[in-house]
Parts: sequence; structure tokens; C-alpha cells
Amino acid sequence: MTIPPRRQPPLSPGAVIGVLGGGQLGRMLGEAASRLGFDLVVLDPEPASPAARVAARQITAAYGDADALDALGRVSDVVTFEFENVPAASVARLAAGGALVAPGPRALAIAQDRVEEKTFLIAAGAATVDFGAVDSTDDLRRALAELGAPALLKTRREGYDGKGQAWVRSADEIDAAWAAVGGRPSILEARADFRRELSIIAARGWDGSVAIFPLGENRHADGILRTTLAPAAADAATAAAAQDIAARVLNGLDYVGVIGIELFDLGDRLLVNEIAPRVHNTGHWTQDGCACDQFEQHIRAIAGWPLGPTAPHAAVEMTNLLGAEVGAWPELAAAPDARLHLYGKAEARPDRKMGHVNRLRPLSADAAQD
Amino acid sequence: MTIPPRRQPPLSPGAVIGVLGGGQLGRMLGEAASRLGFDLVVLDPEPASPAARVAARQITAAYGDADALDALGRVSDVVTFEFENVPAASVARLAAGGALVAPGPRALAIAQDRVEEKTFLIAAGAATVDFGAVDSTDDLRRALAELGAPALLKTRREGYDGKGQAWVRSADEIDAAWAAVGGRPSILEARADFRRELSIIAARGWDGSVAIFPLGENRHADGILRTTLAPAAADAATAAAAQDIAARVLNGLDYVGVIGIELFDLGDRLLVNEIAPRVHNTGHWTQDGCACDQFEQHIRAIAGWPLGPTAPHAAVEMTNLLGAEVGAWPELAAAPDARLHLYGKAEARPDRKMGHVNRLRPLSADAAQD
Repeated sequence: MTIPPRRQPPLSPGAVIGVLGGGQLGRMLGEAASRLGFDLVVLDPEPASPAARVAARQITAAYGDADALDALGRVSDVVTFEFENVPAASVARLAAGGALVAPGPRALAIAQDRVEEKTFLIAAGAATVDFGAVDSTDDLRRALAELGAPALLKTRREGYDGKGQAWVRSADEIDAAWAAVGGRPSILEARADFRRELSIIAARGWDGSVAIFPLGENRHADGILRTTLAPAAADAATAAAAQDIAARVLNGLDYVGVIGIELFDLGDRLLVNEIAPRVHNTGHWTQDGCACDQFEQHIRAIAGWPLGPTAPHAAVEMTNLLGAEVGAWPELAAAPDARLHLYGKAEARPDRKMGHVNRLRPLSADAAQD
Repeated sequence: MTIPPRRQPPLSPGAVIGVLGGGQLGRMLGEAASRLGFDLVVLDPEPASPAARVAARQITAAYGDADALDALGRVSDVVTFEFENVPAASVARLAAGGALVAPGPRALAIAQDRVEEKTFLIAAGAATVDFGAVDSTDDLRRALAELGAPALLKTRREGYDGKGQAWVRSADEIDAAWAAVGGRPSILEARADFRRELSIIAARGWDGSVAIFPLGENRHADGILRTTLAPAAADAATAAAAQDIAARVLNGLDYVGVIGIELFDLGDRLLVNEIAPRVHNTGHWTQDGCACDQFEQHIRAIAGWPLGPTAPHAAVEMTNLLGAEVGAWPELAAAPDARLHLYGKAEARPDRKMGHVNRLRPLSADAAQD
């Protein structure tokens, strides 16, 4: 199915960009919007959210608050979101009220449900691990028999950074795993024997144009992203396969904006782990590695502007600063190769993303040619 | 006279930076402050100023409003300014009330008076054109006889972008020139036979550390900056002379923050044209040419952080977008080598600075070695 592109006249500088969510991604979208002359209006339930402090205005309300959504829609020339667990009904209300929303409700709905997501990916020609939908322990037993142990049980909805997940190493663990996900509608995923996790950050405009950043290589600990190295070392076949996946996903969703796609590199092929319909933690390296970073790219895409260049001018090792790790800011501020990005969060709770540091590395010759 | 450095403990992320002035320089300081986790509070008489829309808060009041100044001082961990015509009494009131102000009142006072400025520069060992203070047509006649025609009459205070200036080509023009400057206290400057105008953007921390960006070469039209090319082609002697001037000026003023120094390049020596005690239009190229731009450098300096690196990773041609020129944004947005920076000003009055574009150029080998 080819969806004809919906051309959208570019928003003029001075236009208002509405953002559902006022966390660090919204804050960094605000920095980019400011550069391009746009005003940001943030909807977030927490007063003085990180994004609100670099936005023209915050509407402080729950994401499902009808009046707040209507107010956001009225003042915004386009509305986007910075996390994928925004209620689909909120986005639908905005769209029904005449607001331009990007990415659209369909991309959001698919990304919110892991079974829908994998079903879409396979239909789009982007391979995933084998999986089965799980609504009961009986389902789980059947799926485990089919996929083999160990397999990973995840809630279909919500859950991130390793939350709402449980490994099932044998049939003996079925009840415990089912309890671990709270007996909620879930998905069982076959284990992928991957060498490494890659991710690709890509953008698509209203006119169907696509721009793809170089691959990043990710390292996690305890289910939370620790570092991304980019551009990742990758042979031409891997790079081409990743770009093909990105284009299939973007076009298949008729997507507008930046998307983050996590990939398992099996050596001879790539599987899609998950997609995030927003700017993505694994794309933070572009802030200091590319002339046009993922945040500006997202603003450009949703505003109907031409997409920006994606070639890197530096290699970057991005490291998240979790919880008390942000206390290392004095040393990081003193390191000439370290570009610090802090989110303005007062309370450094354990594992809370407080900031990140992009360490600049010389770009290898082959990466520069990409 | 060597002033011992006043060490200032670094401000922690989350600290508040107060800014007198809410124009584009404040806006871009806000983008940088956001990256480092600081909150900006802006004092500006115009509601919803360009900077206010990326600040945590704006205090809307005249720059001389005592209550507003006291409020700004109370909420700010350090106060700075984004233009040099802030009333000196306002900065003095902030300092007297216990606020940390950077750059300090002395740098501001010197930069506000062209006679004081040149007197300071010469005492610091930074050469300027010959000049004479002018308080009457008799003064003007004497100074013209001494300096020779043509010479440039400027008001001692205020005036920028060529305003408040008149060339005196002969003694016949004395009355007209005196009328052109409104009969205000003025300075007559000998004409400099310069090949080109350069500028140097430099920073100094509370601890006396100094960091200097590469030279830029400026082109003006009708007294307004049109383009800066940076890093400017310059031989080692010129680069060293400029760095020496920057260090003399910064140390002589016991300066904290970023300063912009405009230089006349006479071929065999450099003269200082003027100093601006703030981030500077001719330093905008650093946003896309350096890992740490002049705005982050200023925030680092006034916050007591280590100064950032100043090596360029790209050459940049910065062009101001004046008045209706900002209407070229669609073409500029589509040019892959053009990085657009827009200021969020609604009304494109003639010659008003609406934005700028940084066009990226490959860095020449010798510039990269600097």
C-alpha cells in the first residue's frame, strides 16, 4: 500500500509547536525550536517541567485533561509528543479538534502495543524476533513451547527501560513471570542471539522525504541505555539493511517526524527490537556529532521544513548520567572533549535520567564518507 | 596593576542566571543555559521578549526599575547583561544588593563611554586610533586640527550600528557634524587606514583563566555587520597580536564572561576599534563552527565553570538577516550547508536583526592546527 504524501506548507518562524510531555526530550526540542524561531508550548502535569523552563508556556494538566488538550490545540500550529505513552485518546481528541498532529495517531497506537508493533513491522518487511501474544498463563505456556526457552515476557503496553519485563527460562517460571507482568496482556518474544544492539534515528517529512542518521551502537545495563557509540562501525551491507528498515518503517507508518528504531545485529541480518515514535535517547549523539541534530530534525519534519543534513562531523560516545552520576558534572565540565547536557531535574532519584555527556572522538575516514 | 583572581565556586546545575535584556543574545544565552541545566530569568521592558520565550521567567519592567532589579537579584545566582547600554546604576544596584554580577560594573562603565574605553585600552597596552574628547565645537576644531581630516565624530555614549556618528571631512563640516551627534559629549577618532576589520571573541573566568576563539573577519554595510568569516586567514604574528590584545583587555578589566573585541588590521599592526562587554554578533559563527560556542562559554565563565574548548571544527560564513531578508528562510532552510538561527521577532522592521545564517565551509589545514 502506498499512501500518497500529504503536502504541508512549511510553518513560518513564530509558529507555535505544542508538545505533549515536558521531560528532557521536550527540553531539547525546545532548544532546537528556539534556534529556528518557533515558540514551544508544553502540556505536562508536573509544574515547571524541564521543558517548560525553555518554552514560551506550559499548560499544567493531566495528559487526558480535555480542556487542556483543547487549549493546546488552539494555540499550536502543530502538536507533537515526547514520549509514546501519551493516551491515544488525547492525540485523537487533538486531531478531531482540527489540530495538526505529528507523528500521527496511527504511529502512536502501533508503538504503544508491542504485538501491534511487531505485526506492523513484519507486514512492512522489517524482520523481528518471533513472538506470541499472551493473555493468560495458557497462552504463555503455548507460546513458550513454540518459541523455546528462554523467552522474554513483556507487557503489551507501557513499560520501558526494562520495567514490566520478565525472562522465562523454563516452563517452571511461567507463573512467576505472569505475576511479574501483573497478569496484564503481554507478548512473549523469542530470545535473539544478537552480537550487539544498534539503533537508527531517521526522519520523514510531510512530503514523504526521508533522512537517516548513521547507525549508533548501544550498550545497556539493567535494561537502561548507558552508552551509544556513533557512527557505529558497520559494513556496507549492514548500513544498507538498516536504511532499508528505516525507510520501510517510516513509509509504512506514513510517519512525520523523527523515529528511533532499535535493532538487533545478528551478524548476518538485522531484527527490529522496537520503535519509538519520537526523538530518542540513542540519537543524543547527533547534538554534538552532526550539524543538524535529531531535535532540529524533528522540528523541521513536523513544521514542513526540508529535512536537514545527517552527515556526521565527529564521532561521539554518548553516556547517560543516571541518578547520582550527575554529580560528576564538575569533572565532565572540565574535560575538553566532553559536551555536557543537563536536564534541569532537581531530584536525582536512582536511575533517573539527569543528563548525558557526548564525548567527541575523531571521525574515522570511512564514517566521514558515509 | 595585577588584580588577584576572585575565585568563585562553580554554580550547580539548577542555579538561576539573571539576564538584563531579552533580545536575541539573551535568547541564545538561554539555549546554552538550558543545555547546561541552568534556568534563565530575563529582565526586559518588552513583554514576551525573544529571550523570555526560552527562559524560565521574565520580569517585565524598565531596566532602571528598582523593585524589578531587586527581584532579579533575589532569584539569581549570577546576573549578566546582553547589551552594554544597561544603566550602570542598575548594575550598581544589583551589586550593592549582594548579587553576583558578571561582567562587573567597571567593565560596563568603561565600555559605555568611548573616551573611557580608549583611555583604558591604551593604558592596558592595546593600541587604538588617535582620538580626542569633544564637548563643544571648539573642542572639535582643535581635535580635527590635531588628528587631521577626515575624522569620525561619535557620541561618547550609546550609539551602535553606525548610529550617532558623523564623518568630518574638513573644518567646514564641524557644525554639521556637531549637530549630527546632537551636540552631545563626543569623541573624535582619527581615520584608520585599515585593510580589514577583524574581531576576536574571548572569555575569562573568575579564576583568571582565559580562552580565545580564532579570529573572525567582518564585513559591514551602512555601519551594520553583514558577514563574519571565521576562522579568518591570518599569519602567526597577527593571530598572536590579537591574542595578546584579548588577554590585556580581559586582565585589565578583571573581566568575567565573554567579550567581543573589534580590531582594525593595518597590515603591520592591529588597533582596537571597540570592545563589547558581552557575547557578540561577530561570534555567532562559533555556534556551528566550535564544539562550545560563545554563548555556552559565557555561561561557563560567569557560572564559575572551567572554560570550554575554542578550536574550530568547521569554517563558517555568518550572515546577518536584516529586516525583510529573513523572508529568505525557506531557501536557507533547504540549503544543506546553511544553519539557520532565528530570533522569534514578530516585526521585520528595516535593518532589524531578525536572525543569522551560518554557512559551513571546510576548515583549511592551517586553521585546524591553531
